[in-house]
Amino acid sequence: MEYDNKYDRDRLERIVDFCREIDKEKFIQRRTYLTDGERLENDAEHAWHLAVMALLLSEYANEEIDLLRVVGIVLIHDLVEIYARDTFAYDTEGLKTQKEREKAAADRLFSRLPDDLGMKIRELWDEFEAGATPESRFAHTLDNFQPLMLQAASDGRAWKEGGRRLSEVLRRNSRTAEGSEALWNYARTRFIDPQIEKGNLADDCGEQTKIAF
Amino acid sequence: MEYDNKYDRDRLERIVDFCREIDKEKFIQRRTYLTDGERLENDAEHAWHLAVMALLLSEYANEEIDLLRVVGIVLIHDLVEIYARDTFAYDTEGLKTQKEREKAAADRLFSRLPDDLGMKIRELWDEFEAGATPESRFAHTLDNFQPLMLQAASDGRAWKEGGRRLSEVLRRNSRTAEGSEALWNYARTRFIDPQIEKGNLADDCGEQTKIAF
Repeated sequence: MEYDNKYDRDRLERIVDFCREIDKEKFIQRRTYLTDGERLENDAEHAWHLAVMALLLSEYANEEIDLLRVVGIVLIHDLVEIYARDTFAYDTEGLKTQKEREKAAADRLFSRLPDDLGMKIRELWDEFEAGATPESRFAHTLDNFQPLMLQAASDGRAWKEGGRRLSEVLRRNSRTAEGSEALWNYARTRFIDPQIEKGNLADDCGEQTKIAF
Repeated sequence: MEYDNKYDRDRLERIVDFCREIDKEKFIQRRTYLTDGERLENDAEHAWHLAVMALLLSEYANEEIDLLRVVGIVLIHDLVEIYARDTFAYDTEGLKTQKEREKAAADRLFSRLPDDLGMKIRELWDEFEAGATPESRFAHTLDNFQPLMLQAASDGRAWKEGGRRLSEVLRRNSRTAEGSEALWNYARTRFIDPQIEKGNLADDCGEQTKIAF
């Protein structure tokens, strides 16, 4: 491939500029502790983890999925937080303006790319936000499953610190089963219920929400 | 999908165990500073960055590539370091035993997965190590291009601290162009040469290595 014309140089320049800009995702802290129970995860680490898990867990998706699309979605799904910041899943005030803030951030961030690529990434992000395709449903399942896995591994530390209740966790996961019944059932019985038993997550729901597994 | 038999439960259990185990990749520090010039990158952040860059830069590959395969390779290429630790690119002693240590680590790590999945991931890793396919060549190019981009963004801090010389950087990058001439030319002229001019990387090669771009 030859790069002796102005157009191609500008194109590569813009893509590389974008690649450098998204380094900032590594500085966006989430509220989930890593398996060491000490350090909080950042958005880039989270996205990497989801992408590897997509490769390994795709057979558990409820529907047939295009794996490259799922991987693309999870890799870029939090990029907008570079400009919009992370909105905590239990921050009810922040959640009110989240959509708007993130849409503005997407406009600003993805327009740094050449138009065709910016549109491609924007489409992946819009698809994730809408959650109306098999790929985006599975991506959402992974996006919820992975922090539950880390919560369990760190013995519910963030739940304990936040004084979280089961009803909040279930509300947050009201659609997790839509991408994968198997993964949601697993998460409920292996990640959530043991933390209730240990007293790290308050059960304000009673028996009726239990899943027989 | 129903999970009422022992076989399926064991299978999902093993995959999830592996997904939890690889969280440790987030604790493996590299020698490259992030764009803030302050914090060192870890392996998970690096792998995420490569995967997004694969999506955005695939058009610059020298050869036709299967993008999902490239993404899979870059996502898992450093996993063995969880057991083998990171071997610094300029650590000549460590490099002598690196292959052996990493092969043992791969045996140990990937055997935690169900056989079929373990073999799939192992194949991706072996392919990366051999570097004999268009996909693995492009993965290697990204693996070299991204830290050069960060070096330039942090004004060669790690090069300055390590007293690095151009000949070392060029030796490390002797095959970078094999995956993408365009990206190597870009890296040389935009990431490396300006750091020589600024005195952050010692030029022990002279004019003959310069690339006209």
